Amino acid sequence: MPTDFASLRAQFDLPKGVIYLDGNSLGPLPSAAAARVAKTITEEWGKLLITGWNKAGWMAQPSAVGDRIAKLIGAEAGSVVMGDTLSIKVYQALATALEMNPKRRVILSDTGNFPSDLYMADGLCRTLGPDYILKTVAPEEVLDAIDDTVAVTLITEVDYRTGRKHDMKAITKRAHEKGALTVWDLAHSAGALPVHLAACNADFAIGCTYKYLNSGPGGPAFIYVAPRHQEKARPALSGWLGHQQPFAFDLDYTPGNGIERMRVGTPPVLQLAALEAALDIWEQADMADVRAKSIALIDRFIAGVEGSFPDLTLASPRDGTLRGSQASFRHPEGYDIMQALIANGVIGDFRAPDILRFGFTPLYINENDVDMAVAILADIMTQSLWDRPEYKTRSRVT
Amino acid sequence: MPTDFASLRAQFDLPKGVIYLDGNSLGPLPSAAAARVAKTITEEWGKLLITGWNKAGWMAQPSAVGDRIAKLIGAEAGSVVMGDTLSIKVYQALATALEMNPKRRVILSDTGNFPSDLYMADGLCRTLGPDYILKTVAPEEVLDAIDDTVAVTLITEVDYRTGRKHDMKAITKRAHEKGALTVWDLAHSAGALPVHLAACNADFAIGCTYKYLNSGPGGPAFIYVAPRHQEKARPALSGWLGHQQPFAFDLDYTPGNGIERMRVGTPPVLQLAALEAALDIWEQADMADVRAKSIALIDRFIAGVEGSFPDLTLASPRDGTLRGSQASFRHPEGYDIMQALIANGVIGDFRAPDILRFGFTPLYINENDVDMAVAILADIMTQSLWDRPEYKTRSRVT
Repeated sequence: MPTDFASLRAQFDLPKGVIYLDGNSLGPLPSAAAARVAKTITEEWGKLLITGWNKAGWMAQPSAVGDRIAKLIGAEAGSVVMGDTLSIKVYQALATALEMNPKRRVILSDTGNFPSDLYMADGLCRTLGPDYILKTVAPEEVLDAIDDTVAVTLITEVDYRTGRKHDMKAITKRAHEKGALTVWDLAHSAGALPVHLAACNADFAIGCTYKYLNSGPGGPAFIYVAPRHQEKARPALSGWLGHQQPFAFDLDYTPGNGIERMRVGTPPVLQLAALEAALDIWEQADMADVRAKSIALIDRFIAGVEGSFPDLTLASPRDGTLRGSQASFRHPEGYDIMQALIANGVIGDFRAPDILRFGFTPLYINENDVDMAVAILADIMTQSLWDRPEYKTRSRVT
Repeated sequence: MPTDFASLRAQFDLPKGVIYLDGNSLGPLPSAAAARVAKTITEEWGKLLITGWNKAGWMAQPSAVGDRIAKLIGAEAGSVVMGDTLSIKVYQALATALEMNPKRRVILSDTGNFPSDLYMADGLCRTLGPDYILKTVAPEEVLDAIDDTVAVTLITEVDYRTGRKHDMKAITKRAHEKGALTVWDLAHSAGALPVHLAACNADFAIGCTYKYLNSGPGGPAFIYVAPRHQEKARPALSGWLGHQQPFAFDLDYTPGNGIERMRVGTPPVLQLAALEAALDIWEQADMADVRAKSIALIDRFIAGVEGSFPDLTLASPRDGTLRGSQASFRHPEGYDIMQALIANGVIGDFRAPDILRFGFTPLYINENDVDMAVAILADIMTQSLWDRPEYKTRSRVT
């Protein structure tokens, strides 16, 4: 049965008058989330108190929710667990991978990666010692840069600015041929397009849930460890909830079974409740349908923008199969254009120096939204809106 | 004006028929928390969407809330920031402190410390390399074990099992005399007793908020860095929200100003909202009053228990000034006794092998609760309740 997108859209609270093209930064509110979190607070925390850890299933929640995420990213059951933030998970995955490839000292990433990934990798290298280096190359050079010095690659599948998508299968294959492990950052992939971690033979993956997965501000991250590695992975962030028997309170750390060992501290139960409400919507979506509609919406947007105002230069791949679920355009006045768009209810975002970024999420964006966004942008670019004093913030399109 | 404890108690949702002596594990629900979180979800996330980071103050929240915590732990304004879990903050504080004391290789802790602290320290040592060691001594030997090989001490002020309190001032003084830095874990101190980080000249401190501070399951942790160290601290967990200019998206990491650099990833906005509701109650409490009443409640409980059943051996210091806000007893049948207590509405917890642990938090526990808990315990110990079939779980007191 094809995905009923109108029904999905009806399950989000979208402010009237807003066309929200920033779900790739913070997804909108699932209508059921408030009640779900309220139930966790009043019925579970309030009434069960400490017994909620067992009676309400809080203790099992990180791996139970992880299994729901696994279905969206082509991962095996028992290979994903929730917790912490994406930055922490970058560190955890890298540190664990480096320890599994002990003769090598190089983390390979690219200059299109999200900066926090690079910062965390850099911090880890400093902690590990001067032999360890983070090497970055241009995104298009990644494949050729994987040589037999590389311990692990740290690649974000979809570029946060341009939406350009790396070839997970090819990079993973090359890495393995050269004896390297892979860490895939799925920040702009999970919920945006089909991901096939198992089929690509990926080693580690990490991601956040507050973008396309709509878990709300500060929603928890996830980590994937391929089943073949799980019993070899000795987590550097060895917290008590990753212990084999957390409640034995042993003084020595013994890693837990399988993916459980990647847990660290107490899970964020309230944020996980919001995520569960969002995943209830995802269960009604077929990711292939989502992808097809995402590409169609973005193609329509690109055609509309380029038809109205060719000075906006497409910064994303034109071929929908080569990009994530976003379209980015460059314009020297990009900051001001985005301010004018936002003031007119079209919420996208700006990434320095000149990128206007628009996320398209078929769960709640449809063709009519696209057409209206194009029309408003066209009005702004032809100055009928732009000339209004409140948009003359810093400069003007001339 | 003395603290109005009856008014504070009225601001918690406490289930009827329950005497909750486990707030040292998970604090109960502040009545205002559900509405506060609901507002964050529906009015902020739902309506402001991505603009909530600025318009609703989410971006500034970790340090704004940190300043509220600072007041409860004797810390300077601008020295505390929220985020992550306590385990992650242990790692962050230790890694940062070790880098500030680069000629030394020893982390000193004690065998009474909470295991996760030791696990995280151990994981860090493995990451740093074979020169680094975690040395643990008996709690009473800590002071003498601080020698000029110690880079940093990792001490939990209040023992999670017995409630025995370390002397923060004396240990910090000795550490500084020997050229060591200090990391204080305040898990069982923050909200339990007056803490004087600044007056004790502490270097780093960390803590959680879901125990005595009542932020709910999975509430965020905090980290303190003494102002004199902040500009020297280069965080090993160098995430983008600790960057000087997160939204410049520089490829290189530049630590942010002051305590801001200890931020890592996206803050847990929903959990922070619940914490804010809890802190609204704390603002009506004077910590000296809380401490005085806590000692009185525990003294009363100890007297009652020992008067009724001397086979329960006090495992906590008898002198109230030498313990945290809990009382622990040892009994060979401790597990079963606690099960019987819980079945009768007295919620404490059991810590292997033989410890019954009871937390006392004057914000919502009063003398009547203490007397009822003692009476129920006495009934159980004299078998009038114990003999009921549902409590014959594994063994019996004979």
